[in-house]
Amino acid sequence: MNIRTINLVKGKIRIIDQTKLPLKLVYVDITRLPQLWKAIKIMQVRGAPALGAAAALGMCLGARSYAGGDGQGLYNRLEACAQYIGSSRPTARNLFWGIEQILAVAQRHQGQPAAKIKQAILSRAKQIMQEDISACRKIGSYGARLLKNNYRVLTICNAGALATIDYGTALGVIYSAYASGKKIKVYSCETRPLLQGARLSAWELHRQKVDVTLIADNTAAALMRQGMIDAVIAGADRIAANGDAANKIGTFNLAVLAHYHRIPFYIAAPKSTFDLSLKDQSGIRVEMRQTQEVTSLLFKRKIAPFGAEALNPAFDITPHQLIRAIITDYGLIRKINRQNIRKILKED
Amino acid sequence: MNIRTINLVKGKIRIIDQTKLPLKLVYVDITRLPQLWKAIKIMQVRGAPALGAAAALGMCLGARSYAGGDGQGLYNRLEACAQYIGSSRPTARNLFWGIEQILAVAQRHQGQPAAKIKQAILSRAKQIMQEDISACRKIGSYGARLLKNNYRVLTICNAGALATIDYGTALGVIYSAYASGKKIKVYSCETRPLLQGARLSAWELHRQKVDVTLIADNTAAALMRQGMIDAVIAGADRIAANGDAANKIGTFNLAVLAHYHRIPFYIAAPKSTFDLSLKDQSGIRVEMRQTQEVTSLLFKRKIAPFGAEALNPAFDITPHQLIRAIITDYGLIRKINRQNIRKILKED
Repeated sequence: MNIRTINLVKGKIRIIDQTKLPLKLVYVDITRLPQLWKAIKIMQVRGAPALGAAAALGMCLGARSYAGGDGQGLYNRLEACAQYIGSSRPTARNLFWGIEQILAVAQRHQGQPAAKIKQAILSRAKQIMQEDISACRKIGSYGARLLKNNYRVLTICNAGALATIDYGTALGVIYSAYASGKKIKVYSCETRPLLQGARLSAWELHRQKVDVTLIADNTAAALMRQGMIDAVIAGADRIAANGDAANKIGTFNLAVLAHYHRIPFYIAAPKSTFDLSLKDQSGIRVEMRQTQEVTSLLFKRKIAPFGAEALNPAFDITPHQLIRAIITDYGLIRKINRQNIRKILKED
Repeated sequence: MNIRTINLVKGKIRIIDQTKLPLKLVYVDITRLPQLWKAIKIMQVRGAPALGAAAALGMCLGARSYAGGDGQGLYNRLEACAQYIGSSRPTARNLFWGIEQILAVAQRHQGQPAAKIKQAILSRAKQIMQEDISACRKIGSYGARLLKNNYRVLTICNAGALATIDYGTALGVIYSAYASGKKIKVYSCETRPLLQGARLSAWELHRQKVDVTLIADNTAAALMRQGMIDAVIAGADRIAANGDAANKIGTFNLAVLAHYHRIPFYIAAPKSTFDLSLKDQSGIRVEMRQTQEVTSLLFKRKIAPFGAEALNPAFDITPHQLIRAIITDYGLIRKINRQNIRKILKED
């Protein structure tokens, strides 16, 4: 891959500014925590796995600005950073997972000097980036088995290189099938309101020379009806213990449409997206975003009349019954239930 | 209603330029046939019933430019106009219905001088506008019975005053229920790519003081799942003899989602939208529109990477099995089959 979504360059977090794509490929260097918070909030960096790494690196950024030598003082600072970063976007499980990973390392180094803790958490944050790369490759390799030659795959939003450190989850499956010599055709739902399918997925698939055709979200059912779709693959932002999966608004639409047309619907996500503390979807908090995303086109041209109300949930939840399999870095979860999910994720 | 979509003013066809809404309410006077053709093509005027009237008025415009006195010569001119107007948009049945109405009148006046024929067709075109107004009121009144007090109704695209001469079909049902004192809440799907739900439906509902909330098309399933939708009503562009109905792309999505959530899905359309010559959906020709509608936002900001392909069917087709009832100006068609459709439309 030639796309590196998040990197650590001379102590700065270098990200691709995804609000500028596909018109411009712009990198932004992040040196302060409020800058990271905003980058997450306005989605310069987005995608559940990428947010896990961004949050972990953000914790290190917060730690660096702690001038004292006292370990406990640093730990208190880290807890404050955790609160702050966690307030950016509530739904992506990986964001909180990344924060927890760093806090756990700091806790294991209790009683040690601040410098030592800083070193340890930075090393863990770097490791998280490496683990993400490796998890995506595994997801790709497990998932590619599900795609036959000449398959036409529908996807939504961006669960690609731009949603991870590189390679991607749902698109990772496609890249892996493609790399193994299979001919894959992708239909990318543009994904209103923020158009990640058009701006990001079409961009990176095109760049990787995968055959991709963009459609309005409204076109999904017509394609399915005409026998033009063999499988649907989406990413996830949080998966409950029973397999119910939150993902970009519109994903549940596709799951219902696929169910009606007897087309397999897959979710691709690393273990870090699972929230086994939640029994089912009832515990998932869905982020409501500002209505201007709907009442205007990318904050430019206004498309709604003055004073019109809008509703803008960023995610919906697909009940596990509609998911044919969850593709994880620990293998495929084909029989989706609590026991089996725990078993395959080695949480038993 | 205070919205008049098409009018005849001093021999000119005065239309609301719908490409300018909701930012500006601009009227355009059409005096030449190519101007009308373009207005239909780029959707300054749109909506199946409105296209019926526009086509009929367009035929009169074409006739007016015929300077000769010979009736047969005029008839030949009208046939050429019919071809020309019909080449603008292939799916809306009403467009062709409007043309046929005018040709039929001309044919009935065979052998008469051109001036006489011109008078007769103009009178028929004016009558079509009146009939449309009356048909919408009837649709509204039949359909309003289906909506209970406090119903929350989901709609797509614009099947309102702006899609007809005034009042509307699907929105006519809502206006009628509202006028009878029922509290109705409307959720309007923005309807990518051309956003008629945001630009037009939200605009006219808001103007008529009906409670309307705009959503991205992707949000429909989540609202249904949360029990926030009691009924779905859409218009239609062409309905086959068995009740299969073509309408704006995304309508079939909603029909499947409503079916899954056991929410009634209704189509509202006048008799002139029915094409009883078509056995079923297999005969309906779906207009493919230019891909720039998808790869850009209203032809302004580009949202797809350079060279990306897109697919842009303007319509999809909802099989009659998913339609709970068709609301027509001849009454409700609850049992949707060939016999019953012919019976209720008095075509037996």
